[in-house]
Parts: sequence; structure tokens; C-alpha cells
Amino acid sequence: MPEYKLIYFNARGRAELARWIFAYGGIPYTDERIEKADWPDKKKSIPGGKLPVLMVDDKPLPQSLAIARYLAKQAGLVPTDDLEAAYCDALADTLSDVTGEGYKIMFSSQSEEEKKKIYREEFFPNVMAPVLERLNKRLQDREWFIDDKITWADLMISLVFGEVRKRKAELLDAYPAVITLVQKVRDNAAIKQHQETAPDTPF
Amino acid sequence: MPEYKLIYFNARGRAELARWIFAYGGIPYTDERIEKADWPDKKKSIPGGKLPVLMVDDKPLPQSLAIARYLAKQAGLVPTDDLEAAYCDALADTLSDVTGEGYKIMFSSQSEEEKKKIYREEFFPNVMAPVLERLNKRLQDREWFIDDKITWADLMISLVFGEVRKRKAELLDAYPAVITLVQKVRDNAAIKQHQETAPDTPF
Repeated sequence: MPEYKLIYFNARGRAELARWIFAYGGIPYTDERIEKADWPDKKKSIPGGKLPVLMVDDKPLPQSLAIARYLAKQAGLVPTDDLEAAYCDALADTLSDVTGEGYKIMFSSQSEEEKKKIYREEFFPNVMAPVLERLNKRLQDREWFIDDKITWADLMISLVFGEVRKRKAELLDAYPAVITLVQKVRDNAAIKQHQETAPDTPF
Repeated sequence: MPEYKLIYFNARGRAELARWIFAYGGIPYTDERIEKADWPDKKKSIPGGKLPVLMVDDKPLPQSLAIARYLAKQAGLVPTDDLEAAYCDALADTLSDVTGEGYKIMFSSQSEEEKKKIYREEFFPNVMAPVLERLNKRLQDREWFIDDKITWADLMISLVFGEVRKRKAELLDAYPAVITLVQKVRDNAAIKQHQETAPDTPF
């Protein structure tokens, strides 16, 4: 097995999915967390200057979803059927789009009051709710996102909507099948242990 | 082989990579192009309400890169080595980020003069040039993005930077290895024929 080092800020953010996959797969790795103050200096040594980066035996792999998909293959969390793998990829891109929109609001220069209003009146009803709606419908007929086997798509669903639940649980009230999946993944022993031992960060 | 129908607007945009992969792989498909005027009506029938969508035997697959990766597997354009496949994925995500930034400027409400200024002073030097720089360095030592075999990453590089060349060829002057790859892919007989026969659209 190669030596893995995951480099990111001291946050869940765009690295947490990789950390969950490492945990689920029992794959050893170094979890390097960079403090904001050290980033301008460190940035020069990162090809592309963006985090997360996964070092695979000292060769850098950028892009959070490329990292997650690669690790998911090592952990047996990518379907071998091409079309099933593609549905996982599409779900991951869709959740990444949603998360990206959410971060954009979070890191904007608006006041907390304005941000709340945008989340409530634009982001949730127009961006997040339609995705939850389709996902809830799909999960009503299946044990996991891809029928009867767990994949990295399930880990990502649980990660993203578990974060939503932490902030405002009632947003998920209308989507019980999603809540069930969020909890089922978080009840996995390895994921649970990771959650309990990972540094406590605001996002 | 399943029946494929690719649904998108009458544009290259985010569907053209899939069309190139279809062409390169000699895979038959229906290229459904929706006129802007018909979109509000058609939108309701598209799960997720976003294009492109690939219909695979009447089952919808959304997300342009999930579509491209799936088709690339069918066309033999995805490396079988997991890490090589991951480098292609990371490159695709990076070029998609760059393209997304470009579209955001293109479709903003600013004047043409303001847009040109943003492209020239912000987008090109800060977003596109750093990617071109790294890519040019990598391609100096290799025949293709992954050593000696063509992958969907090469098709995407040629597509994205060939579009840049069409608009402002001199932006690529400092990146001769990228220019060589752009041309090498576009000289492929199947890609060439597709370019010559596809509808002529502004982007």
C-alpha cells in the first residue's frame, strides 16, 4: 500500500469525505492540518496552490472528489458496474455544487443576518431542497444510494446532510429516508470512532 | 450496447466533451439540441432540471463530467490504473473549475468592455495561466497527459484550450507543449470529422 498524507486546513470542509473513506476502509494515513496563519508560506510548496491535496508516496493528487473517488476504490466503495459508478460520480458532483454554493454564502462579506436570509429564502428552497427531494424519493426504494450496497455516495450524503442537521435539523424534516441514511452511515463503527476522535472544528 | 441520447442546448459548452468521446470511440448516439425558447417547457421533464443529461436506455445520467467519465470508459479512454485514472479526474475537475469561472464572466450582466478587462486582468493571469503553466511543464516530458497513452484528459485539454485559441490564440504562445497537444487531438480523424460536421455555434 502507498504511503498517504492528506493535507488540508484544520477543518472538515472539502477534506472530510476523504477522511471518512480512510476511516471506513481502515487505511492508514497522515492527517496534516495547516493553520490559516501558516498557509501563505506553505501554499508555495503545494502544486496548484489549493487544498486538499493527497500525497501518494510523495506524488500530489489535487481536487477533493478525485481524491475521494481514488480512495473509495481502494476501500471497495466504488461500484464495479460503469453506470452505477457514474451515478455515484453524478451524485458527488451535485452535492459538491450544493456545498460550493453554501460555502460561497458562508465566506461572503455579508452580515450574519443577511447570510441567514439568503440561506433561508434562496439557498435552501432553490438549491438544496430540490436535491433533497429527489434523493429522498430515490432512497425510499433502496437500502443504499446504489440498491443494496454501500458506496462512497452514501458516505457523502451522510456527511453533507449530517452537517445540515447539525446546523438546523428541521430542514430535513420532510426527507425521512435521507435522515435514515445519514444516521445509518454515522452509526458505522469506524465512522463513529472517527467522528469521536477527530479535532472539533466549526466546519 | 445501450441506446444513448445526449440532451443539451444547441452549443458546445458542457456537452462537447461527451460528443468528442462519442466521436473518438465511434459510439452511436442521438445528439438532442434544445433551443433556448423551448427550455422552460422541456426543463420540467429533466430530473434535476439541468443540462447536459445523458439518457442511457431511458435512464437519465446528469453532470457533464460524470457523463464524460462514463463514456470515456466505454471508449477505452480511462486508465485502468487507479492513480492514473485519478490524475485524469483531477485534471478534469481543474479544467471544469477554470471553464466555470470563464462562463460566469461570459454570462454576467457586465458590458463587453468590462468583461474583456476582467478576462485580461484577472481571469487569464490568476485563473488560467497557472493551470497552463503546470500543464505545459508536464506535457514537455510526456507524449500525452498520462505518459504514452491517450485518455479523456487529453480530449478535454484540447477542447478547452482549443476554444481559448479560437478566441485569442496569443494567450497560448508561452505554452508550446499545450499547443502541440491541442492540435494532436484535433488532428485525430474522428475528432476532425466531428468538428467539421457539428452545428456551428458561438460557444
